[in-house]
Amino acid sequence: MKIAVLGAGSWGTAIARLLANKGHDLVMYTNSKDQYKVLQESKENPDYLPGISLPQNLSYTLNLACVEEAEVIVLAVPTSACREVLGKIKEYSLKEDAVLVNLAKGIENKSLKRVSEISKEILGDLPFVCLSGPSHAEEVAKDIPTCVTVACQDMSYAYKIQNIFSTKNFRVYTNHDLVGVELGGALKNIIALAAGISDGLQFGDNTKAALMTRGMYEISKLAIEMGGNPQTFHGLAGMGDLIVTCTSMHSRNRRCGILIGQGLSVEEASHEVGMVVEGIKTTKSAYDLAKKLSVDMPITNKLYGVLYEGKNPLEAVKILMARDSKDEIEEVFFL
Amino acid sequence: MKIAVLGAGSWGTAIARLLANKGHDLVMYTNSKDQYKVLQESKENPDYLPGISLPQNLSYTLNLACVEEAEVIVLAVPTSACREVLGKIKEYSLKEDAVLVNLAKGIENKSLKRVSEISKEILGDLPFVCLSGPSHAEEVAKDIPTCVTVACQDMSYAYKIQNIFSTKNFRVYTNHDLVGVELGGALKNIIALAAGISDGLQFGDNTKAALMTRGMYEISKLAIEMGGNPQTFHGLAGMGDLIVTCTSMHSRNRRCGILIGQGLSVEEASHEVGMVVEGIKTTKSAYDLAKKLSVDMPITNKLYGVLYEGKNPLEAVKILMARDSKDEIEEVFFL
Repeated sequence: MKIAVLGAGSWGTAIARLLANKGHDLVMYTNSKDQYKVLQESKENPDYLPGISLPQNLSYTLNLACVEEAEVIVLAVPTSACREVLGKIKEYSLKEDAVLVNLAKGIENKSLKRVSEISKEILGDLPFVCLSGPSHAEEVAKDIPTCVTVACQDMSYAYKIQNIFSTKNFRVYTNHDLVGVELGGALKNIIALAAGISDGLQFGDNTKAALMTRGMYEISKLAIEMGGNPQTFHGLAGMGDLIVTCTSMHSRNRRCGILIGQGLSVEEASHEVGMVVEGIKTTKSAYDLAKKLSVDMPITNKLYGVLYEGKNPLEAVKILMARDSKDEIEEVFFL
Repeated sequence: MKIAVLGAGSWGTAIARLLANKGHDLVMYTNSKDQYKVLQESKENPDYLPGISLPQNLSYTLNLACVEEAEVIVLAVPTSACREVLGKIKEYSLKEDAVLVNLAKGIENKSLKRVSEISKEILGDLPFVCLSGPSHAEEVAKDIPTCVTVACQDMSYAYKIQNIFSTKNFRVYTNHDLVGVELGGALKNIIALAAGISDGLQFGDNTKAALMTRGMYEISKLAIEMGGNPQTFHGLAGMGDLIVTCTSMHSRNRRCGILIGQGLSVEEASHEVGMVVEGIKTTKSAYDLAKKLSVDMPITNKLYGVLYEGKNPLEAVKILMARDSKDEIEEVFFL
């Protein structure tokens, strides 16, 4: 099957490698001439997945026209670039049975739209599948056993993508709750930033587990308000992705939080991580959504203060910890 | 207030230190003459909490008669010792307003009883409060911010214990779901053993997050069948404790799992950890309960095979990963 992966970051590259190894006809698009040259010559992606050799049947292109041939188009760019890339795709005539699979995990600033909503706005009825779950690219690229979820409003496309993407070590489950799966992947990055800050401030594993529990509660509350299924948040795209993002050193959002907790500015920390830290922008979107929908999100609010208003992270954590004792079930769970 | 802590392991010692520092009149009971001597002379518990100085107002005793004076009796012994210790307490005449606070996290083998049920059987109506949540002793002993839950069928005792135990860095929430809180603390050790085995076999963070998500689902299913409140499993005593136990190096259950994954026998691994690994016995209890109540618990079943039937851990994980792809919400979440 002909597949085009748009974007040559770590996750796009790991997925392109997996699909090419499965025997699909793969082309990976990048808009960087330098990166194109390196990929073409070295069959490696040293900036994003150092040490991983890419399959010989994976080809590279600087020409977005590759989407015209593709039966599956994988969108592997940061959320903030999705609108622009989808707008460019619109200029090409796609195959009649083409399906879009989105890997980006975020909510657009200002419009407060999920990627599926941006896609709908620009590309209309092009089938849209969201792939999410606890899946660091660095591990998928080493064939370490990983479980993910694909969600689509029309389950026939979810099953199709499940078949195309599944391997022995990459298990793909399906979920009809597109809203919940998109929001789980996006919102968990907020809590990972907060968990990283807690680690950077040298709080303990106890502290972080409490923060993650409370964080899970507040992001599911927002997602349910937005139409997500609570069940999704107990599955791979919710709890699973939250855990891996808050505890693994592969997580850019957590690493960025650690650096902020250690005293770096937000700009310094993002620069040091060197890749897009989706959680920073998602915190702004979630902060705006929480206000708009009147959902109480104390961790998101405090994090917004740290990221956008120069508040001191230690003070933010202290305020979160110092709330009055409450009953865990009858009030909110805690904090 | 006069408080007796029964048991001088790491958690009992950390709680005794915390309560003594709060100004309570604390006595810690141990049945080991050697340990008594060391505690008395060094004001430290080098075997269980090395490097932590214990407060001067914390006293030690080898005489269980200390319970007669106590308004709060803290039970800090392994689950397998609870029946014996509670039987001995019965021989003393307790204060009329005495409350028992249990720290043990397990389910008794054979009887398949929770600690509150054993207490009810032996001590009748003595008020029973369960304290649980993500709280490694090593961190509580350093005043690292920690959140826990206390549960009691009669909430007035939960509030009483909340007041007595709360400090600035030890936040105590209340929950009326005694069954759920007891089971959350006990059953999460099963998943921590399995997560440790996954780490010991050098699977990745992705793999472990998927295992924890599925594990959370299966232990809540059993707990709900036994009368627990599903909400509890999304809180500190459920998800919070699961996360800290599966990811922290302070977790004995996880450490024991890592050693088993690396090839040690169950006996060698427990010996190496050097403290009680509750999850080993709890796996047997949960395995029996799942059969009795017809609850499908694939991880618990596979772990039982590894711990009690000499099955190969790698094979067990492979079988868990090789199940047919399913829909995440409509079937079980996954696996």
